[in-house]
Formats: sequence, C-alpha cells, structure tokens
Amino acid sequence: MITINENFLKLQAGYLFPEISRRISSFQAQNPDARIISLGIGDVTQPLAPVVIEAMKKVVVDMGCEAGFRGYGPEQGYDFLIDAIIENDFRSRGIELDNSEIFVSDGAKCDTGNIQEIFGLANVVAVTDPVYPVYVDTNVMAGRTGRADKNGQYDKIVYMPCTAENNFIPDLPKSPVDIIYLCFPNNPTGAVASKEVLTKWVNFARSNKAIIFFDAAYEAFITDHDVPHSIYEIDGAKEVAIEFRSFSKTAGFTGVRCAFTVVPEQLKAYTQKGRAIEVNSLWSRRHCTKFNGASYIAQAGAAAVYTPEGKKQCRQIINIYLANASLIRQSLTKLGYQAYGGVNAPYIWMKTPQDLGSWDFFDRVLGKANVVGTPGAGFGPSGEGYLRLAAFAGPADVKEAMQRFADV
Amino acid sequence: MITINENFLKLQAGYLFPEISRRISSFQAQNPDARIISLGIGDVTQPLAPVVIEAMKKVVVDMGCEAGFRGYGPEQGYDFLIDAIIENDFRSRGIELDNSEIFVSDGAKCDTGNIQEIFGLANVVAVTDPVYPVYVDTNVMAGRTGRADKNGQYDKIVYMPCTAENNFIPDLPKSPVDIIYLCFPNNPTGAVASKEVLTKWVNFARSNKAIIFFDAAYEAFITDHDVPHSIYEIDGAKEVAIEFRSFSKTAGFTGVRCAFTVVPEQLKAYTQKGRAIEVNSLWSRRHCTKFNGASYIAQAGAAAVYTPEGKKQCRQIINIYLANASLIRQSLTKLGYQAYGGVNAPYIWMKTPQDLGSWDFFDRVLGKANVVGTPGAGFGPSGEGYLRLAAFAGPADVKEAMQRFADV
Repeated sequence: MITINENFLKLQAGYLFPEISRRISSFQAQNPDARIISLGIGDVTQPLAPVVIEAMKKVVVDMGCEAGFRGYGPEQGYDFLIDAIIENDFRSRGIELDNSEIFVSDGAKCDTGNIQEIFGLANVVAVTDPVYPVYVDTNVMAGRTGRADKNGQYDKIVYMPCTAENNFIPDLPKSPVDIIYLCFPNNPTGAVASKEVLTKWVNFARSNKAIIFFDAAYEAFITDHDVPHSIYEIDGAKEVAIEFRSFSKTAGFTGVRCAFTVVPEQLKAYTQKGRAIEVNSLWSRRHCTKFNGASYIAQAGAAAVYTPEGKKQCRQIINIYLANASLIRQSLTKLGYQAYGGVNAPYIWMKTPQDLGSWDFFDRVLGKANVVGTPGAGFGPSGEGYLRLAAFAGPADVKEAMQRFADV
Repeated sequence: MITINENFLKLQAGYLFPEISRRISSFQAQNPDARIISLGIGDVTQPLAPVVIEAMKKVVVDMGCEAGFRGYGPEQGYDFLIDAIIENDFRSRGIELDNSEIFVSDGAKCDTGNIQEIFGLANVVAVTDPVYPVYVDTNVMAGRTGRADKNGQYDKIVYMPCTAENNFIPDLPKSPVDIIYLCFPNNPTGAVASKEVLTKWVNFARSNKAIIFFDAAYEAFITDHDVPHSIYEIDGAKEVAIEFRSFSKTAGFTGVRCAFTVVPEQLKAYTQKGRAIEVNSLWSRRHCTKFNGASYIAQAGAAAVYTPEGKKQCRQIINIYLANASLIRQSLTKLGYQAYGGVNAPYIWMKTPQDLGSWDFFDRVLGKANVVGTPGAGFGPSGEGYLRLAAFAGPADVKEAMQRFADV
C-alpha cells in the first residue's frame, strides 16, 4: 500500500496570503470604487534593466541557429556567470572562492528549501521569530519537527525571538542547536546585521559545530559601508556557513528565475560517529542529481547584471526601491508610528498603534487608507503587533499610500 | 554537532559519464586527428523552432517595459500554458484534466527526483533494470534503500529486468511493491509500451494499492497510432499514476528548462492507519513551498510549441531525430547487429557482438569508428552486453557514424 510522508500532515495551512487575498476581495466587493494600493507582497515591479533585456534577447536569437544553440548546460551553472559572480560579489570584498563553490540555481526559495536534505534528521533547527516560512515548512516536511502548538510553532524547533528590545537581532540560543537560519537584511523586519553580530554567530557556530544557512537575498539593498554583504566577510565563516543569493530582488528576476548558493570547500559536517565529510561534495551530488541547471537564458541575463552598464542600471532600480523605503519609514515616523527597517532593506516593520493586533490593524489600514500590508503575526508570534510594508511598489503609489496613511 | 544525511554515503560514484569522458580524452590525446562523433549523450542539437524563438523574444522585450513586466508567476504555472497543455496533450486524446492537476516546472529530472518526497520511507520501490539513475539515486538519498551490492544494485529496491527475452517490457513483480517507476518510450532501451502492457500495469497498481510514476519525457517520438502517449489513455490510470512530461526532447528545451507533471485529483495515498489522502494536495504543498514557478520566458516559449506553427515546426525537428534513429537501426541491422528501439523512440539499444562486455565494445567502437555510445552496463546489470546510441546528433554526423561502423 502506497503510504504518504505523514510529516506533511503536521504542516499548518498556508494561511497568511490566502487570508489577505480573502480580506482584500471582500473589501473590494463592498467598495468597488476604492483603488487599493498593495505594499503587501515582496515582489518587484520595475522592468528589467535594458542591458539584461539585450543579453537575453541575444541568446534567445542564438538558440534559433545551429551555432548558437545550447542544450543541457553544466548543472552547477555556466562559468561565464560563476566567474562574474566570484569577481563582483566576492573578490571585490576580499573573499576568494573557487568556481566549484558556487551552485547556480533557479531560485533561493528552492535552495533554502532543498539544502536541509543533505543533513541528518536529528539536527536541531533554530530559526528567528518572525521568520520566512519556507525555512520551517521544509524542515517539517523532512521530519525534523514535532507538531505545531496553538501559536503555530513546531515542537523541536528552537525559535529565537526578534523584538524591538533586541533590535530584531536574535540572541544566541541557550540550548544546543545544529542548524541556524539567518536572513540579513531581514525579511520581514528589515533589520541588518553588523560585522559584530555576524562575528558572534560565526564564533558560536564554530564553537558548537553548528552550521549557518545565511540568506542574503536582499544584500543589494545594503548601502552603509560597514554592513557586511556576505557572511564570508567574517573570519572563519567558510568553515560554518552556506550563503544563499538571488537575482530576484537584486535585478528584478522574480519572473526570470536565477539564484546561487555558496558552499565553501572548507565546510564540514559529520557522520554520527564523528567522521568529517565535505558538505560541498554532498550538495554537488544533490544538486546534480535532482536539478538540470538554470535556464541558459536566465543565466545570460544574470551575467549581464555584472557588466558595468548592468551594475549601473540595476543600482538605479534598487535606488527607486530604497527611496520608497525611506519615504515609507519617514512618513510613518512623522505620523507618530514606530517604524523599523527600511534602511539597507526593502521592508519596513511598523508597530501597530495602541497595541492593536496585526490583523486588526491590517483591516484598519485597508479600510481607512485602502492600503495593503502584511500582518506581522503571519511570520510568527513575535510578529504580533506589527505590520510589514514592502517598498517594491511604484514610487507614485508609495507616495499616495503614505498620504492616505494620515487618515488611518 | 551538525550531522549529514548518511544515506548519501550509500550512493555509488557517478561513474558512467565521467568514465566515458575519461576514455574519450585518453583516445583523443593518442589520436589527435580523429574526428570523434558522439552518439552518447541524450541531448538535443537542433536549434529551437522559430515560433518558440519569436515567443520568447517577445516576452523578453515585454519584461523591459512596465506594462509587460512580470514578477513571481503562479507557482503551478501560468494558465496560458496549462490551458494549452490540457487542450493539446490530453483533451485531443480524450483525457479530461483540470488546471489544478498540472504542475509546470523547470524539468522532468527535478520532478521525477522530487516526487518521492511526499511519500513514506517504508514504501518499496520498483524500477526497471536498466534504469535512468535519477529514479534510484533520489530514493537512496531519501533513505528508502539499503546499501549497494557489487552490481551496484541497492538492497530493498525491487529491480525488474528488461531483456531481449521479455522485449524489454518488465514482468509484474512477484513480491509486493508500492512505488513503480516506468518510462516509455524507454531510456535507455527505446522500448515502447502498448495499451495492453500499460493496462496490465494500471490494473496491477489498482489491485495492490501501488502508485506508478510514469515518465513520458519521450512521448513526442511516438508515431505508431496504437501506442499510448499518456498513461491516462488507460482506464483507471488517474487513480494510480503520476505522469511526467518535458519540453526538453519534445521541443529542444534542454537548455531553456520547462516541463510539467500531472497529478490527478482522484489519486490517493494512505496514512499508515489507512486514511486516504489526496496526492494532488500533498504535491501542491511541496511544489509551492520549495519552488517559485518556471521562468516566465520558458513558459512563453513552451506555450508557443502548441500553436499550429509550433506543432508543425517541432514535428519537423522530431522527424529529423526519428530519421536518424531509423538510419541507425537499419544500418546496424544490415551490418548484422541485433538492434532494438529506434522506432517511436530516439534511442537504439544494440547488442554487442560475440557477447562482448559493454565497455569492451565501447572501446572497440571508439577505437575503430571514432564513435561514442553509452555502455549499457552503466544503466544496470541487465544492460551488460548492450550499447545505447542516441539519435540526437546532426543527420550528417549520424550518416558518417553509420558508414564508419562498417569498420568496427
């Protein structure tokens, strides 16, 4: 008899975005003339950079002639892209990496979801609260957790609260953990980690033989010079960290699909008997067995991001979003709200007034300003009392949304 | 302490293609003037159909302007593609499917590798011998097998020999199995399954509450009218089968990356206590949690495959490969070899002469004809004594390769 993976039955319903959609539809039905502005979803809106378009157009045309046609590419990605990644994202910051340490993929969601496969089921997983749900759900599916409690938190997972009191930087866990998911600049809080903070985590992982999964999908939004873009800017990080990067937010690739993961050769994990195994070779085996390379077209587009023109054009787009973020944070602050993030990050994490619940405040903002945010409670119990606003809408919409906020 | 998934240590070295490369390099070094023709790798070589190129060019340009830009698409795929898939691949053959039953992805390798995640670890897996290694390796990684024996076959997996004696159609297993991987037209043997054969398997699965993973990646090569293209042409198959399709061989998308998987709503699997669960909802949860949709550009290209022009152009390309296959099979037969497949399929499975071992014959063909095949033993013990030839090279190369075979 074919049996299911019963761990799937532990998963909570994917409640957040369906419930937001339901409330929007209901509101729009009752208020057909309202023009709703969404600052809810973390998806980009600006067109792709012209140099990216040109690069993809060129290879599409090439694919139509015998000389330019390409079939299966290397599963790990084309060297033309990996070379550009290493040169621009790492060597320029003093980090040396070998081509074999970069794994190009079709998305950071896939990579952060799949990476746990190569590790044992007995590892204790630590995540922040609030958290990007993919980190948790993929561990639930694999069987590393027990059931969820009434707050939606799973047994056996160590949750690290991120609150205004700790500046949304998690404290080191007090009980032993083996796998630590960190995301900076953070989704949803917009918090960034200083060199000191990351050093503390790297040292903790080294002392405890733990591993850090470092999600740096929003690194392009960092403008302060002293904020690290890569965890490998920290001494010793190559021994304990895997880093996830994406072109989704850096270059507007949410629809194109291209990302990459860094697995340093020095990184080791252990058999139960304590034998050290290279994590790079495990991930290489997993990646090449279950994946057939990112689209050649997407990889050609991603490589164009690193040309001088590409860097300039993508920077201009990022600056639009950063100006949005700045406007949101400043407007909210002027209106008397407590707002976090929005600097070096595309997310603003605002405290609800009068300790209103996330969903109550969501409804009020939708009703009074016709603006959609994301209730912080949807990211975990420590998100209760917060609303996440994303800076990815068009500047005119963001400006209008902020004007309307005066009426909330 | 971070521990690894020790199942990975059971995996055999990915021996086949690296060893082929090593022997080619060594031969080329000793024979620098030899022009080697490869009939080894199952990758396409013909340029993409013009209508596909135009469709992809159009959306690439669209992505550069505000009105045409698309960010995250639906994780399951765009309806414009799913509608075309259902209409052309299924309704035209009398199979009704709902849009929620199609999951667009970036490749059938990913899908056939990932599908096992939603099923329990105690399920007994049955595969053919010879077999596409991804089916086996992904189950090894998940922990459904024991260690490999000296033939490279894993404990707990049920291997179903496919030999000339049974026309390369596996017999029904004699011991209970829960998950059955079938691939028709077959890689590597080129065998196809008649309606009777598939009916036998569907009935077996229904009687035994087993599930069939039906890999139909090569269905476009079927030309005989009585050979089923989809397992859903068989009554009752929707209750027991998941079907994998790909644009890789159908439309030359090995570098573009687009595929899809069909998970019918009727399909059920069970908890250990016997409660029936919809497999579609499990796969939907898995797909949407760990995947962010196939590239919009690839999906636009795939949709163009289904336009009247697209069908005509892709058919012309398939016909080139089928003519290659036919020439290979006929030439080998004329030369006195026993050759199978190559009809309704892009692979020819040739018996080595005088019971030579696969690798010995590989060396002889490389040495005497400067032609590369794939040793059958690389796909499993029942492949010993065979060489796989692929029909994907250019027609001139195939013709020359066959002329050279006279000297083997």
